Amino acid sequence: MDMKKTVKKSNDVMAQRLYAPYAKAEWGFINHWYPVKFSNEIAEGAVVGAQICGVPLVLRRSKGKVYALKDQCLHRGVKLSAKPMCLTEDTITCWYHGFTYSLETGSLVSIVAAPDDEIIGTTGISVYPVEEVNGMIFVFVTSDDFDDEIPPLSQDMPIRFPHNNERFPHPLWPDSPSVLDKNVVCLGIHRTGYANWRLACENGFDAGHLLIHKDNAIVLAKDWAVPLGIKPVSDQATQLVEDENGPKGFINMYFTEHYEPVLENKLLNVRAAGTVPKYFRTSMFVPGVLMVENWPEENVVQYEWYVAITDDTYEYWEVLVKHCENDEERQAFEYRFKNFYEPMALHGFNDCDLFARDAMQNFYADGSGWNDEQLGDMDYSIITWRKIASRYNRGIAKTPRGVAGVVKGASNVLAEIRGDQPGAIRDKAE
Amino acid sequence: MDMKKTVKKSNDVMAQRLYAPYAKAEWGFINHWYPVKFSNEIAEGAVVGAQICGVPLVLRRSKGKVYALKDQCLHRGVKLSAKPMCLTEDTITCWYHGFTYSLETGSLVSIVAAPDDEIIGTTGISVYPVEEVNGMIFVFVTSDDFDDEIPPLSQDMPIRFPHNNERFPHPLWPDSPSVLDKNVVCLGIHRTGYANWRLACENGFDAGHLLIHKDNAIVLAKDWAVPLGIKPVSDQATQLVEDENGPKGFINMYFTEHYEPVLENKLLNVRAAGTVPKYFRTSMFVPGVLMVENWPEENVVQYEWYVAITDDTYEYWEVLVKHCENDEERQAFEYRFKNFYEPMALHGFNDCDLFARDAMQNFYADGSGWNDEQLGDMDYSIITWRKIASRYNRGIAKTPRGVAGVVKGASNVLAEIRGDQPGAIRDKAE
Amino acid sequence: MDMKKTVKKSNDVMAQRLYAPYAKAEWGFINHWYPVKFSNEIAEGAVVGAQICGVPLVLRRSKGKVYALKDQCLHRGVKLSAKPMCLTEDTITCWYHGFTYSLETGSLVSIVAAPDDEIIGTTGISVYPVEEVNGMIFVFVTSDDFDDEIPPLSQDMPIRFPHNNERFPHPLWPDSPSVLDKNVVCLGIHRTGYANWRLACENGFDAGHLLIHKDNAIVLAKDWAVPLGIKPVSDQATQLVEDENGPKGFINMYFTEHYEPVLENKLLNVRAAGTVPKYFRTSMFVPGVLMVENWPEENVVQYEWYVAITDDTYEYWEVLVKHCENDEERQAFEYRFKNFYEPMALHGFNDCDLFARDAMQNFYADGSGWNDEQLGDMDYSIITWRKIASRYNRGIAKTPRGVAGVVKGASNVLAEIRGDQPGAIRDKAE
Repeated sequence: MDMKKTVKKSNDVMAQRLYAPYAKAEWGFINHWYPVKFSNEIAEGAVVGAQICGVPLVLRRSKGKVYALKDQCLHRGVKLSAKPMCLTEDTITCWYHGFTYSLETGSLVSIVAAPDDEIIGTTGISVYPVEEVNGMIFVFVTSDDFDDEIPPLSQDMPIRFPHNNERFPHPLWPDSPSVLDKNVVCLGIHRTGYANWRLACENGFDAGHLLIHKDNAIVLAKDWAVPLGIKPVSDQATQLVEDENGPKGFINMYFTEHYEPVLENKLLNVRAAGTVPKYFRTSMFVPGVLMVENWPEENVVQYEWYVAITDDTYEYWEVLVKHCENDEERQAFEYRFKNFYEPMALHGFNDCDLFARDAMQNFYADGSGWNDEQLGDMDYSIITWRKIASRYNRGIAKTPRGVAGVVKGASNVLAEIRGDQPGAIRDKAE
Repeated sequence: MDMKKTVKKSNDVMAQRLYAPYAKAEWGFINHWYPVKFSNEIAEGAVVGAQICGVPLVLRRSKGKVYALKDQCLHRGVKLSAKPMCLTEDTITCWYHGFTYSLETGSLVSIVAAPDDEIIGTTGISVYPVEEVNGMIFVFVTSDDFDDEIPPLSQDMPIRFPHNNERFPHPLWPDSPSVLDKNVVCLGIHRTGYANWRLACENGFDAGHLLIHKDNAIVLAKDWAVPLGIKPVSDQATQLVEDENGPKGFINMYFTEHYEPVLENKLLNVRAAGTVPKYFRTSMFVPGVLMVENWPEENVVQYEWYVAITDDTYEYWEVLVKHCENDEERQAFEYRFKNFYEPMALHGFNDCDLFARDAMQNFYADGSGWNDEQLGDMDYSIITWRKIASRYNRGIAKTPRGVAGVVKGASNVLAEIRGDQPGAIRDKAE
Repeated sequence: MDMKKTVKKSNDVMAQRLYAPYAKAEWGFINHWYPVKFSNEIAEGAVVGAQICGVPLVLRRSKGKVYALKDQCLHRGVKLSAKPMCLTEDTITCWYHGFTYSLETGSLVSIVAAPDDEIIGTTGISVYPVEEVNGMIFVFVTSDDFDDEIPPLSQDMPIRFPHNNERFPHPLWPDSPSVLDKNVVCLGIHRTGYANWRLACENGFDAGHLLIHKDNAIVLAKDWAVPLGIKPVSDQATQLVEDENGPKGFINMYFTEHYEPVLENKLLNVRAAGTVPKYFRTSMFVPGVLMVENWPEENVVQYEWYVAITDDTYEYWEVLVKHCENDEERQAFEYRFKNFYEPMALHGFNDCDLFARDAMQNFYADGSGWNDEQLGDMDYSIITWRKIASRYNRGIAKTPRGVAGVVKGASNVLAEIRGDQPGAIRDKAE
């Protein structure tokens, strides 16, 4: 019998109506700022490709500045990044037919073999605003018809400290640095996850998923006192952030009277372990950026982004930020990152999260999961996120046209997996 | 010109109407008993996953008994088997958020981090009856809304001997043992085939496919006199089994006056080879189990199951059964199985069948094969099977929701083929 | 903003209407002659499979003659080529149930195990005309309902010389040999490309794509003076070929007053390199065969075919033809082919074309590219091709039934990539 039918769900029809836009955002939220590369991934002159919310992007660094254009030549639709060609410092040229675009405006400034073509100057490809800050490159990814004013990067980032100390008190740890601060160092990794980006977001701040980290080596090594779970006990547990011209999101008020740690489950005979108090706080902001304060250690904060690539892949960003006043502090942070944070936290600990998100994908891939899931009280913050994301996103990305990932199981994708090279001779037709 | 159009087919519109339900059963027949694992594949305490008719199953052995539940946590839909977690002997816990289910009833008995959640006791996941007999584990796979009485395993198994000796005489070989008999040993293998389960069924008892075995090593080694084919010469050739509260299927009455061996094809100048008479008989039963009596050798019977996993994959089961009165006989059977039956029969001989079934898949994958196929007299038993299966199946499995295999060419499936691990760092977005 | 919307395109709605049939031909043009194998790929007695325009083909050479039949047994739809079985010189037998077809007519002449079946002689599979000439095997691939007269191979081949010298003067190079000439040797390769066949066609004669060859080793080694591009300066630049009962296509009148080489792009500061004049001419004919005269060297001509396999794969044929009056000349040509033409021209040079075509596939795979592409003056010849192909093709291939490549991401295809063998034992169901 189907017991599911009989039970009360937090994601009932009423709730689903309140986050309907979110449920439609398979391809992500468009017209937002997203991280695209670390600064050291784009050397001077380099041309690299990426895809965000189904929008193919080509990035080039010229005279120090990074430019982002649509990675789809308007002529025959090939990726400029497939075979980089740059003939001047101010342009990028399509390797196929020589269509040459201004890095600044995206307009077609010349065609290598047709300098006098009348099409020149009358058309072009979309360009996207880029901000480079403290070793990270952000791009404002827009739909082709976007023509509003471009909001500052800070609107798509977490709230900052000490600015918000009074509003969101945190007596238990030092002020968290921000990617946008002066004198900070940002160190991290990014990799592709095989799930929808929303499933990744919801894992990040999920108060109920501590269980998957119970046995992590870093937890045992540091003897952290991690509760079995954290239970919201007032409607203040999750506090909204709806700053005009500022971040939109919410904060889980852990380690306040609004949350109660769950230390034991008698029926199942499980008890929280660890003796060293471990204080932290998670908050989540549109378009999908997580801040974990006081993590993995004091004076460090962990940011995470879950950036839609296609409707079933996302780029997972893990970035640690720390104030470093001088080279010595920077080197110490880099040393600790390479030898401790990266292997034990960003991998050892967060690999469990990556696994968990990908494990949800089959349930949601055909769309049925959004109705069949059965959320409860512990998912309070997830419902909160879905609603606020529905209210404040700047657009639902459309299913893209002519982009990899739209046609599932396409032969060119399988050929790449098979390792077929254009040079290979095969006389079997299939 | 399309000569197909002009010809008379056994699968004409009239016939197709009589087995319409079968033609709709892409995902298999639900509400039946199927083999899921061999006993030695689930050790005490072990948790393993499987999928049958699109239903994900998680199996756990606790205190000797095997339990089967739906392998899809009602909360976020992950597989419990993806990362086994068991906190008590009577429950299985979802590794992600700690939802804990009773092995007996499937009801939600606790949540690790929310012992007092009011949802507890009000919901649960489906459980499935399990029978373990003579080294095989069977599960009764149901739709979520099934609430009839559960039929005995014997109803979904072949008829038994000597009970049916008078009804279906077989003077040419000893009584075939049954998986359900006392003092039998069942030895076999199972593996995934890449075709629809129905194509596999139809290969098993197909009187016309002897040709693919003509050159098999075991046939030559034993010098078996295998005819080119066996031709039905009366409408008694195929005898129906429609026992009330018993098996439903049919028997090919080989080596009776109802069948005539074809020993020669003059036009093609082919002749049957072999000098040693080889007697056997095939019969097929709902939901898709084949019995080959007196095979591969005297006193042994071969059972085969073709169990739908998805609409284009099935689990192929090959099981040999023999009466063994003591350890010595058991050891002799195990020795002969490992060194002769498994390599030369279950592989050497039946690998040709696996190949043949998979070779049909492209023709049927888009659904067109069910109309375009051109069956003739030799397919008499196949039409018989389709009709009886249509009449006696207990339900057509629906296309599942939120299950692997529904979305073809999904990125997470391709990633697994590519060997991508959650731990891998990739900075290319596509 | 979407600058694309504002601009004039050569592929405007009006133009698109004129080549609508072409835009529908995902699976190719049916009822045409296509190369299927080189003669040395089918030895006496050999049976090989191929697929053209979604039509599965099985080829057998018997008593020197090559026969082509539909590679789909009418009984259960398996490929005869999956496991070749030939019992007489005049027939091919299906390995599964012994259905035996006449090589000449395709009619069912016997069934191994049912020599008296009344279906015999009443049905059969399609056969396809075959022509073998100068080391190449061509097949006339038809729809099942084709019953017109079969046109000569020459109608689907390029125009010939010297026959057309006056009509299409070429003072700059010797007369190009033809595959159909006496005393010619044809040497080449063929391989699978992962794009739609039309994208491959359009790359072949594309006057605007010289850029991708600018840096090719053969160009530098021979110091060829290759312009940046070639610009049509009169409406005579592209001359139509619409011979009654003859080839249909067009010629790019390079190196005449109708084309102007572009040697420099001042804005981008690029200049054509090379000092050795290099004369050649491209022409394209229905159903998709390119002729490059005087290429790669004098007295040699390069033919290319782009043969649809599925809607997203095609077979790429590169064939060099040369008159050889005696064995010595033949050996010299073979020597030069193996050691120079194949590695540096057919690979080094044309690999760039293969790459370019496959790079377009994502843009066109979902059908959107045919509207979103933005063609200009340089694409004059591409529009010409689309129109003439729309006018003179003998049929648009339908999406095939029951053929590999129709269902994308099918499990049996993924299994083959994964390297799963029928013999493998796997007890995980997924």
